[in-house]
Parts: sequence; C-alpha cells; structure tokens
Amino acid sequence: MEVDFSGIKVIGFDADDTLWVNETYFRETEEQFAELLENYETKNKIDQELFKVEMDNLNLYGYGIKGFVLSMIESALDLSNNTISQTTISQILDLGKKMIAHPVELLDGVEEVLEELKDKYRLIVLTKGDLLDQERKLEKSGLSEYFHHVEVLSDKKEHNYKNLLDHLDIHVKEFLMVGNSLRSDVLPILNIGAKAVHVPFHTTWAHEMVSQDEQVNDHLKLNSLRDILKYLNK
Amino acid sequence: MEVDFSGIKVIGFDADDTLWVNETYFRETEEQFAELLENYETKNKIDQELFKVEMDNLNLYGYGIKGFVLSMIESALDLSNNTISQTTISQILDLGKKMIAHPVELLDGVEEVLEELKDKYRLIVLTKGDLLDQERKLEKSGLSEYFHHVEVLSDKKEHNYKNLLDHLDIHVKEFLMVGNSLRSDVLPILNIGAKAVHVPFHTTWAHEMVSQDEQVNDHLKLNSLRDILKYLNK
Repeated sequence: MEVDFSGIKVIGFDADDTLWVNETYFRETEEQFAELLENYETKNKIDQELFKVEMDNLNLYGYGIKGFVLSMIESALDLSNNTISQTTISQILDLGKKMIAHPVELLDGVEEVLEELKDKYRLIVLTKGDLLDQERKLEKSGLSEYFHHVEVLSDKKEHNYKNLLDHLDIHVKEFLMVGNSLRSDVLPILNIGAKAVHVPFHTTWAHEMVSQDEQVNDHLKLNSLRDILKYLNK
Repeated sequence: MEVDFSGIKVIGFDADDTLWVNETYFRETEEQFAELLENYETKNKIDQELFKVEMDNLNLYGYGIKGFVLSMIESALDLSNNTISQTTISQILDLGKKMIAHPVELLDGVEEVLEELKDKYRLIVLTKGDLLDQERKLEKSGLSEYFHHVEVLSDKKEHNYKNLLDHLDIHVKEFLMVGNSLRSDVLPILNIGAKAVHVPFHTTWAHEMVSQDEQVNDHLKLNSLRDILKYLNK
C-alpha cells in the first residue's frame, strides 16, 4: 500500500490497547463479576445484562472504570432482583479499585517507536475515559517524557477531533492518529481529512466494533506498532 | 486595593460554584443520603464517615459525581455493617443519576460578565472533575459561545497549572484565574506568579477549606463576579 505521511507534524496516540493493555483487564473483571453472580444467571446472560446497563448509562457516566463499576452494581441488583448480598456489592467496589490500581503493561514496541519519533514529531496522547486514570497510567508507564501532553476527550467523534485540532492550532493535513479502534481512532479521523493508522488489539469491546459496511480501506493497518517506523522514519 | 490587570490576555474561569451552582447539590444529596441511613447513625456521624471515605478514595477516584456515588455506597455498607438494604443501594445510584442530570443554574452576573469580556480576552473554562459532566454542564448552560475551550485538570495544584500554561503557550504574566476556591483557584495561581480573583460561594466543601495560616492578602476578593468588570473593563 502506498502511504504518504510527508506533511505530518503531530501524531496523536490512543492510549488504552494502543500504548498499554486495557481491554484485557475489563474482560478479566467481567469474568470475576460473573463468578460473583453465578448463582443467579449464566455467564452469557450476565454479560448481556451488564453490556445493556453500560450502554443505557453511557450518556450519563461516559467511559472509564468508575462508570463501569456503577453499572456492575446496577446489573448485580437487577440480575438478582435486589437480593444480591451486601458483601458482593462490597466485592464489586473492590474489583473497581483493583482495576484502577492495576500496574501498566506496555505493548510490544511502544517505547522503541516513541523514542524514534519523539524528536521528529510532536507526540500527544489522545484518549477518552477518565482524565485522572489516564494521567496515572501515563505516569506509571514511564512514557511521559515522550509526549507533549495528554488530551482526554469525552468522546472520539468527528466534532471532538475537530474541536481539538482547532484549539491546538493543528491543520488536519499535519495530523496523524494512531490507535486500535476503527470506530474511535480511524473512521472519524479519515472523515475530517486527517490520516490514521490502525493497529488492532486482540480484544475489542463490543461497543467499539464496526460492521462490515462501515469498514474502510484507505488507511494503513499494521500488525504491530513497531511497523509504523517503516512509514514514518524514512 | 490597587490592582493591575493590564498585561492579562487569557482568563481562566473555574466552573462549579463560579459560573454555576454545584456544591449546593452535593449538600442536598448528602442530606438525602443521611435520610436513607437514619436508622443506623446520626446525621453528624454519617457526614463524617462519608467525608472520610471520600478522602480515602480521592487518590483513586479523583473529583466528580461518579466517585462521590461510589463513596456513598461504600459508606452505606460501612455504616450499616453490611446490612443496608439492596433497595437503598439502588436509591443511592439514583441520587447520583439525578445529580448528573440536574439542570444548570447560572450564578448572578455570569452571562453579563462573559459578554463584556469575550472580545477583549481569551476566556477558557478551567475545572477539575469529570470531563463529560463539565462539557455537559457547559452545553446546558448556554455559555459555550463565550469560551475558547474547556480544560479539565485532574487536580488544581501548581504543577497542573504550570503544565497547562506551557501547553497552551500562555505566559504566567498574561494569565488571570477567577474562581470560588482559595485552595484551588487562588493560592496555586499566586504561587506560580500569575494573577487570581477570588469570588467566594456561600458553601465550601470541607476539602477546599484553607486554614487561617494559609490565607493570603495579595489578591482581589469580590462579593460578586459582576464586580470584576470594574477592574477588567476599563
């Protein structure tokens, strides 16, 4: 595939599942949540109910661990017809605290790529979710020195990206976004006329899935972040 | 008091209890929370326990409604020795949703002041708390048009302000912060060499209180935001 990144000056990196592991911990927590509720429903039904409650609450709670924990508690009450034990509620709170305090696990090649790119481009972290969580993860990751700063968006839709590029005074033609989510990191970026690189992670949250129809071909898809150096570091 | 704001180019406005009412709704929710738990403890003891849990969780949850709700649930379990009813937990979740969906009530003079200042200064909203909540409130407030953009900080300490001014390319001498909290909006700003105006709100969260020793005199304190026009709009 022919790719021209010659005008790029600023690179936005998604954080969760692009720089470090994230979705895996949500899946693990969902497993533990289902175990806590195994007397009430099947794993499958529990997953479905939790996802439904999360989607119903998304407008109110937004992305991030705290909203996820509140939705787990609500689902536990629903699934048990308000008979779930107080101890279990307490255990759900603890699952959330454990997630927040989880060590940061960098993905393969991340540090090498950032080291190579940091003097040639302005690098920013561009993520949705909770600001405090993301700042904490960046701090723990040891990657702070590579980034100009962190931007947390309440969502990653076209208007969010447009507003951001406006306020940072970045022209769309100078901007490249790198991330694991087609829906959040690639499609809206291509739609506003900027460039995007897709580096899939092995696990994708159902909410981030895109249908076959929405798939687009005119972007670079890489198996490993490390491969981006072939295109940017010429 | 002699005040020289002649070099100011950018004004940061705190949002909660500076532009619109906020603390009042937290106090009202605490009243309702105490009523839900009235069979277990006195109002006074319930307030103390909730504040203690909030402070213990602050590093993990940060500021905002979702962390507050999680701390209410944890306090309810603690105060009742894990006997609080499932229905009550559900009611606590509802208290949180009600807070998030609460209409925005502008403080006196806000719109008039912003209208006067918007063409002379770059105005930004500078708040801590939850990004989604703050964007939603700004949207509901009808004040979006006055502001260049919204910055949500994970905290309002000296280093948070320094990083922000750096990344926005604003010199400290050009920056004025306006807010209701001495601890968050005034003291750190004066310490980094920028200017600050204090407009107290009638209710202050215990965590934002400063001791007599920490009080400083070399800043402008106003009874109403409206009075800022006497100093800035000359």
